[in-house]
Amino acid sequence: MANQKKAAGETKEAKATKAAAEASDASKFVEDLAEKDDFSQWYLDLVYKAELADESPVRGCMVIRPYGYALWENMQRAMDARIKATGHENAYFPLFIPGGFLEREAEHVEGFAPEVAVVTRAGGEELTEPLVVRPTSETVIGHLYAKWVQSYRDLPLLYNQWCNVVRWEKRTRPFLRTSEFLWQEGHTVHRTEEEAEAETLLILNDVYQDFFLKELAIPGIPGLKSESQKFPGALRTYTIESLMGDGKALQSATSHNLGQNFARSFDIQFQDADGVVKHAWTTSWGASTRMIGGLIMVHGDSSGLRMPPRVAPVQAVIVPIWRKEEERAAVAEAVGKVEAALRAAGIRVKSDWREERPGFKYNDWELRGVPVRLEIGPRDAQNGQVVLVPRTDRAAKETVSQDGVARRVQEVLETIHTTLFEQALAFRKSRTYQVSSYDEFREILADRARMGFIEAWWCGDGACEAEIKAETQATIRCLPLEHPEGAGTCVHCGRAAGVWAIFAKAY
Amino acid sequence: MANQKKAAGETKEAKATKAAAEASDASKFVEDLAEKDDFSQWYLDLVYKAELADESPVRGCMVIRPYGYALWENMQRAMDARIKATGHENAYFPLFIPGGFLEREAEHVEGFAPEVAVVTRAGGEELTEPLVVRPTSETVIGHLYAKWVQSYRDLPLLYNQWCNVVRWEKRTRPFLRTSEFLWQEGHTVHRTEEEAEAETLLILNDVYQDFFLKELAIPGIPGLKSESQKFPGALRTYTIESLMGDGKALQSATSHNLGQNFARSFDIQFQDADGVVKHAWTTSWGASTRMIGGLIMVHGDSSGLRMPPRVAPVQAVIVPIWRKEEERAAVAEAVGKVEAALRAAGIRVKSDWREERPGFKYNDWELRGVPVRLEIGPRDAQNGQVVLVPRTDRAAKETVSQDGVARRVQEVLETIHTTLFEQALAFRKSRTYQVSSYDEFREILADRARMGFIEAWWCGDGACEAEIKAETQATIRCLPLEHPEGAGTCVHCGRAAGVWAIFAKAY
Repeated sequence: MANQKKAAGETKEAKATKAAAEASDASKFVEDLAEKDDFSQWYLDLVYKAELADESPVRGCMVIRPYGYALWENMQRAMDARIKATGHENAYFPLFIPGGFLEREAEHVEGFAPEVAVVTRAGGEELTEPLVVRPTSETVIGHLYAKWVQSYRDLPLLYNQWCNVVRWEKRTRPFLRTSEFLWQEGHTVHRTEEEAEAETLLILNDVYQDFFLKELAIPGIPGLKSESQKFPGALRTYTIESLMGDGKALQSATSHNLGQNFARSFDIQFQDADGVVKHAWTTSWGASTRMIGGLIMVHGDSSGLRMPPRVAPVQAVIVPIWRKEEERAAVAEAVGKVEAALRAAGIRVKSDWREERPGFKYNDWELRGVPVRLEIGPRDAQNGQVVLVPRTDRAAKETVSQDGVARRVQEVLETIHTTLFEQALAFRKSRTYQVSSYDEFREILADRARMGFIEAWWCGDGACEAEIKAETQATIRCLPLEHPEGAGTCVHCGRAAGVWAIFAKAY
Repeated sequence: MANQKKAAGETKEAKATKAAAEASDASKFVEDLAEKDDFSQWYLDLVYKAELADESPVRGCMVIRPYGYALWENMQRAMDARIKATGHENAYFPLFIPGGFLEREAEHVEGFAPEVAVVTRAGGEELTEPLVVRPTSETVIGHLYAKWVQSYRDLPLLYNQWCNVVRWEKRTRPFLRTSEFLWQEGHTVHRTEEEAEAETLLILNDVYQDFFLKELAIPGIPGLKSESQKFPGALRTYTIESLMGDGKALQSATSHNLGQNFARSFDIQFQDADGVVKHAWTTSWGASTRMIGGLIMVHGDSSGLRMPPRVAPVQAVIVPIWRKEEERAAVAEAVGKVEAALRAAGIRVKSDWREERPGFKYNDWELRGVPVRLEIGPRDAQNGQVVLVPRTDRAAKETVSQDGVARRVQEVLETIHTTLFEQALAFRKSRTYQVSSYDEFREILADRARMGFIEAWWCGDGACEAEIKAETQATIRCLPLEHPEGAGTCVHCGRAAGVWAIFAKAY
């Protein structure tokens, strides 16, 4: 109670200063981690201690525990609403793909063949044609689209599926890179190249970027992939690239204009209005449980996760506080009332009645990143009050009347969303560089305390890009959609350069 | 319009007679089909023509098309709400299971080994231990539960997952029996046998049976499986058995009390309050896309599907009618207004502006089973009216004011739910027999026009059960939870019998 009074008595200015100090402490902690190369361990600790996921008995596969899966369900719901609002329908295609299908698209098989899992026995017999466990479904869906598309009247075909896919990875990390992961994959068919390109960008902007900004509070950068980084078989790949707390980039969602490549390989043809039979234009686009890894690494701090409020599995936790047994009933009554009020307002709320000390519970829920903590002790119960503590700023602790608590929690959840976004944006800006020389480029990327996005002119030559990668481990993350006009000289080779690129080390 | 006036002018009695006639026509149609052994073809035609599913290039696997998947999403939402309301949380476990896991439970491996698909190569290498694609997840989940459960304080553990599973089937049929299917599988851990049994029955009654009655309008019969029919590794299996339109039974969802079998095989132990380390008691329960097959075969009629309104992908379809181009604008305005009103009321509505004749559209939407059709022509537009036709009774066509249409559609949807349920129940009753001799038993099961559920006393001897199956192809579907008191003589062997059983041929 002492802390609470002190906090309530502070001026607004003092609070703001404290908040800024705390934010920078948190950020400094993560930066320190990165510098000491402990960031990976911090990430794993958070994933396991917050019970988002656990290791599985199958190498490289993970178990998503209820707290992690509830987060995924909220993310799915928000993403699915955007997918449907833009005119798409969900469907379900088979897990298995006939082995020969992958080979029909030359680049595609080259990209995926090394990492597929193959079923060779089923129902007690050797299969005559082995089956690939889908690493992505362009091929099997292409086969069906060839059957379903006959006339221009059948177009566009705008389907999506939520499913599991398997890509056998040598080095895995929960959420970021696992042999099995969950995702959505959209697959569309169009009459013209322009329509396919418009679809690819619609998904990038109105589905993915909108989702990252408004749901995950992540300021990703939408852009085009270079030729070397595009999806195997695509004409063009667009991406959202986000900057993690250690200064490395994460490719967070991708949208591919497949041109007519898959339409040719799988005979997706239609009779156009002019009577001519033509190959269709297709797109595909995906976002996966990898986004959960991004969310952890963008928002986490020294105390643990910080869940973006709109997708948080628990938005507010109520911690009852009592010492004597005779205080319990009054506290329980207040907790029940507050919980009911929050639930009625559509807030995802949980009361923590475990037999543990309040301090243990505070730490536990901070670790799990619950946006708002509500503390209710005997005096609060008596005074019709609640103590509210936002996860993003302990010093902004406030006392709220029980009658107004639901409304106040909603306001604070919105504030926390904005705070998380602004902190992530400020961090990204502080770690985005426009360098004047390749020496500076290398220095920044070699320094764990400074590493981040480097923006520079690039000549557009893949050989130059490959040399940069060999020398610095940095890749072109994207050619951002928003970029300076004009031209310059390539940051690596010094030749005339017309392409503005973002380089970074990446997950 | 002529039809409409005639319908509107009919007396209530005339309508009711017509409705009964139509219902019996529909039912007669399906019975005729069954008699002629055309029921299977009728089923396949419906699945493909209504675009619920399509064949896939992988034998035995199906593609669920958007109309079928939207149905599944609605079913999932309704089932998931019940799973969560009874205290369960969702999680996600790996697709792959180490080959050795299955073997740890003797009955389990015997039951599933013959139908598993096995991954032997991954990432370009032969695997040292082959991986089984999950046919069900008791084993891999058991492995994790052993890790998560330590103390009686960790119990109960109440988790569920929505996922795909693979069981390699020789003879497949879309939705009813496919090598890959979608389902939910719940897996729980308890402190005592009583708690595990209570959970098994809670799921059977409050989740599954409630779902079948209130969402699918299917009057299934909850009961216990006989020893020969229970889940491999279970102590007891409970089931919901539904009667299809051809008089065969469909096992529609199952709930298993696993006793301590899997807890022993996977070392799921906890320290109880008395300090003693004990094996836990577990349950598992599942319901799958098979339910879609059941829905088709219970409610379908001579015109096609009849979707239970609460899960129907489209609850109301609006068919605009116009001849002259100058009529189109007024009709479009009325259609827009009605569509908006229905959508605002939470009704899933679609307007069909395809360039086809109204009659074609009527047939198409009847085939797809949309519960309510709304027709709007120029005169309706002018008079602020809509013609409403329920899928269950064309003769009950009525004219409704546009202002009241949303409310009226909601009422009619509820009526249709009740009608579907009552028709299915009446059919089930008409096809349920209490026989006085084994001769009668055999005669009924040999007659496609009479086949159904046979209720009879059974001696409880598995050998007797096996003989009945060999002689009649009928199996014990369940020992119904509601049954007569007392005892009788076994329908087959004539010995004293204390078990009341339901026999039928089954899918």
